[in-house]
Amino acid sequence: MKSNWLKGLALGLAGTMLVGTFFLNVPSKNVSDTMDATIVADAATSKKSTAPKYIFLFIGDGMSYPQIQATADYYGKDASGDVETVKQSTNKSDSPYSSSLSFMNFPIVGSAQTYDATSFAPDSASTATSIFTGKKTHSGTINMDITKTKKYTTIAEQLKAQKGFKIGVVTTVNLNHATPAATYAHQPSRKNNYEIGEELVASGFEYFAGGALMEPTGKGNDQTSIYDLAASAGYKVVTTQSGAKALSKKTAKTIVIAETLADSDSMSYSNDRAFSEWALKDYVKKGIEVLTNNTGFFMMVEGGKIDWACHANDAGSTISDTKAFSDAVNEAIKFYKKHPKETLILVTGDHETGGLTIGFAGTNYNTYLDNLDNQQISYAKYNSDYVSKYKENKTSFSAVLTDIQSLFGLVSEKNKTSATNSNLVLTEFEYKKLKTAYDKTMSQDSSERDQEEYLLYGNYEPLTVTITHILNNKSGISFTSYSHTGLPVPVYAKGLGQSNFSGYYDNTDIYKKLAALSQVK
Amino acid sequence: MKSNWLKGLALGLAGTMLVGTFFLNVPSKNVSDTMDATIVADAATSKKSTAPKYIFLFIGDGMSYPQIQATADYYGKDASGDVETVKQSTNKSDSPYSSSLSFMNFPIVGSAQTYDATSFAPDSASTATSIFTGKKTHSGTINMDITKTKKYTTIAEQLKAQKGFKIGVVTTVNLNHATPAATYAHQPSRKNNYEIGEELVASGFEYFAGGALMEPTGKGNDQTSIYDLAASAGYKVVTTQSGAKALSKKTAKTIVIAETLADSDSMSYSNDRAFSEWALKDYVKKGIEVLTNNTGFFMMVEGGKIDWACHANDAGSTISDTKAFSDAVNEAIKFYKKHPKETLILVTGDHETGGLTIGFAGTNYNTYLDNLDNQQISYAKYNSDYVSKYKENKTSFSAVLTDIQSLFGLVSEKNKTSATNSNLVLTEFEYKKLKTAYDKTMSQDSSERDQEEYLLYGNYEPLTVTITHILNNKSGISFTSYSHTGLPVPVYAKGLGQSNFSGYYDNTDIYKKLAALSQVK
Repeated sequence: MKSNWLKGLALGLAGTMLVGTFFLNVPSKNVSDTMDATIVADAATSKKSTAPKYIFLFIGDGMSYPQIQATADYYGKDASGDVETVKQSTNKSDSPYSSSLSFMNFPIVGSAQTYDATSFAPDSASTATSIFTGKKTHSGTINMDITKTKKYTTIAEQLKAQKGFKIGVVTTVNLNHATPAATYAHQPSRKNNYEIGEELVASGFEYFAGGALMEPTGKGNDQTSIYDLAASAGYKVVTTQSGAKALSKKTAKTIVIAETLADSDSMSYSNDRAFSEWALKDYVKKGIEVLTNNTGFFMMVEGGKIDWACHANDAGSTISDTKAFSDAVNEAIKFYKKHPKETLILVTGDHETGGLTIGFAGTNYNTYLDNLDNQQISYAKYNSDYVSKYKENKTSFSAVLTDIQSLFGLVSEKNKTSATNSNLVLTEFEYKKLKTAYDKTMSQDSSERDQEEYLLYGNYEPLTVTITHILNNKSGISFTSYSHTGLPVPVYAKGLGQSNFSGYYDNTDIYKKLAALSQVK
Repeated sequence: MKSNWLKGLALGLAGTMLVGTFFLNVPSKNVSDTMDATIVADAATSKKSTAPKYIFLFIGDGMSYPQIQATADYYGKDASGDVETVKQSTNKSDSPYSSSLSFMNFPIVGSAQTYDATSFAPDSASTATSIFTGKKTHSGTINMDITKTKKYTTIAEQLKAQKGFKIGVVTTVNLNHATPAATYAHQPSRKNNYEIGEELVASGFEYFAGGALMEPTGKGNDQTSIYDLAASAGYKVVTTQSGAKALSKKTAKTIVIAETLADSDSMSYSNDRAFSEWALKDYVKKGIEVLTNNTGFFMMVEGGKIDWACHANDAGSTISDTKAFSDAVNEAIKFYKKHPKETLILVTGDHETGGLTIGFAGTNYNTYLDNLDNQQISYAKYNSDYVSKYKENKTSFSAVLTDIQSLFGLVSEKNKTSATNSNLVLTEFEYKKLKTAYDKTMSQDSSERDQEEYLLYGNYEPLTVTITHILNNKSGISFTSYSHTGLPVPVYAKGLGQSNFSGYYDNTDIYKKLAALSQVK
């Protein structure tokens, strides 16, 4: 290993920028101050390997600076929820709110640009391709080039094939959704759910955990179930929480599907999850238990519903799922503490979703994040458990308002009492918007939405998205889009080789830095 | 110097986090991998000073990740302006678009949280107080505590008093505006323009350059002019470009006011600037010439109108002023190349303004940044040179549409030809919005705006802000606010001590890191 390491350094000093940044947090061309010069000299004489043995790559789908900061700000509130009070009481910088999210305290944070070969506002398939293979491609494409003919090998495949690492893939969404798929699949379209499933089975990766497969028997429902193929290939397929709990290293290859499935067969949103139901962190913890071995492991963990919540402009669910993601990272931190010299933890996002901002025209310089305390349910569960019944029963607006008050805290002028928080009372403008949206939802009008309607509702249920818009805005939060945006994403690094991840770079460099550090190609 | 340096390190190793990060890009508690451990060991044996002699602190007011990335994306377009083509042609990560902004290539980038003692969406006075003094305070307060009784000393004052550095303050806005004021003033309110001016004179700082002073003869126009006070105190006050050009080191203390003044006596927006008119970079270049000396200098440079453009939701002016800011940083980079072992350049923002997003609900995953090529003028100059005349002359909507077409590229259905870019044709929805805004502007209605009107126009001219909203949205860009937001800001660092600025930290830490590195307190 040492000789490879020195070869890499020699190449770096010869001026190849990628390898030049291999051990350094500064490109060699910028090495000019005393400290940095000594780092270079030091790297050349060091005797130890810099290849991490245990690698965690956490990806918050649709998670960038706004999602992270909003979550930190929200959980940084004091018990009273009074932001004004908190701000004054924390008149010292050494206890910033950021401490509420595990990874914000990592020593290194870089920034990665996310554009893909189609757009400045890329999709999860292409950005995951960049992160896992170091290549740009078109939106919607997984680990193939823009002509859809050449396949790219992923870092997970390389670590397995070249170093014998065990591989884990954990996600809150479907195991053949774009981001997890990009660890093992190679498809011209992310919509090839069945083919992606076949590749999952063929990967031989040791631990899969998350939501159920999409179209496990094909688009025509006429193929052999992927689960059966997996079983034939030696996978133990577990679909109960007790089964998941009982898993140990003894099982060579496992696919764990969460027992409780929510919208689109994903795991529950964190704010809908039952007390006893496993969270993302539990699947990560189990993954660590199953995968730990003397050769090494690579675990990709996706917080996939941060993205879904942002698409739907549901700030409350975005924040609670970002917190659940941070809790999952915390499991890796616990492992790191036991193996500090061999572990690298990376935490990033693939792109921003929704154009989330901590600030809104209507609230100027104020935020009222504690208003979000009133949201009891995700937009998705509200749709499935309430709105569907409204349509069936032709529920009155007045009855719907009662639900809105108990589930989201928003109170109509008529229903307010002396105890009502005035921040949560609907203005006339908001009430009208809500009534128009209710009418639109109840009419079950499926005609194409005009420009104004699309801006108001996207392709979402008008009533539900209007409720979250109003609650967001009253909380001092807003969204500008139902799609992804072009904001760069942070890359937090902790552990062996962390320094490589400083700077402002391209998302393809995440792969390149990781591959160089891991000595795979 | 060495003994102070070692004392700092010893304290750091004893566990004081701030000092522990003094020479390192990792807090000592996280030092655990081979590389980082050797960096520590190395720092302990190094013989050279780590205190930079020449310090540049560039602050893009209202500039965070969205402003920077939007500008990089915009200037990253190819000549045809066809984003789709560019994306495919740059199917390689080692020439990312980011190279179009000077500071995006800096080796280190950290992130700083910006909340103040009032709000998660802070103001420029309090954030500048944090950056220059390491203390949190209320929005609107400059370098005083939240009780408005205790004054804080700034890094500029410390460097001057304790190290004999010459000090430069350069800004595109008024020299007594909040950010530049926070280098030298201590006031309970940023609105104390005259008192701030008095403190400017008392500072003895060697080089001021930018827009004119606000209220130089006091709110009642009855005080001795600050310019006269400055002259009496030994300042050479220059108000012509030729005078600025002629300046040399021979003048001990100078105040340079830009010859051409635009809105609110600030320098022109970059997209309004005449060819011969000095840009921010010219004042920086002159500042370097005037301030360079053997003891050292500290220069604060503010791109102040990035913020103003974002408040007004004018993406075109935001982008061109961010580019001008990047060009100004480039002057520091040139200086750095001559003094690489003694220079530190920091580039950051004080907060985000406007909730800018690269993405918009109406354009989904597409952006059309080349539409912004059509904007010939800032919102401010359009107001002063056009809208004022519309009101005076009761100009017809049809005539206004002709101006809108030539100045912003937006074309009405009626005026379109076969050559018109269809991306720029007003939809019926947009046309109606524009007509409503025109009517509102022409009615000169000064009554308070209701909730819906405020969301549409803020406190801006309805016609103008509607034009920029439509052009932004057609370009795939949007804003959510007319105020500041709570997004963290990047901190780019290049030069001596750069490594200290990695990680995710509080804006007060920018001061603390800089003060520790500079050995002042």
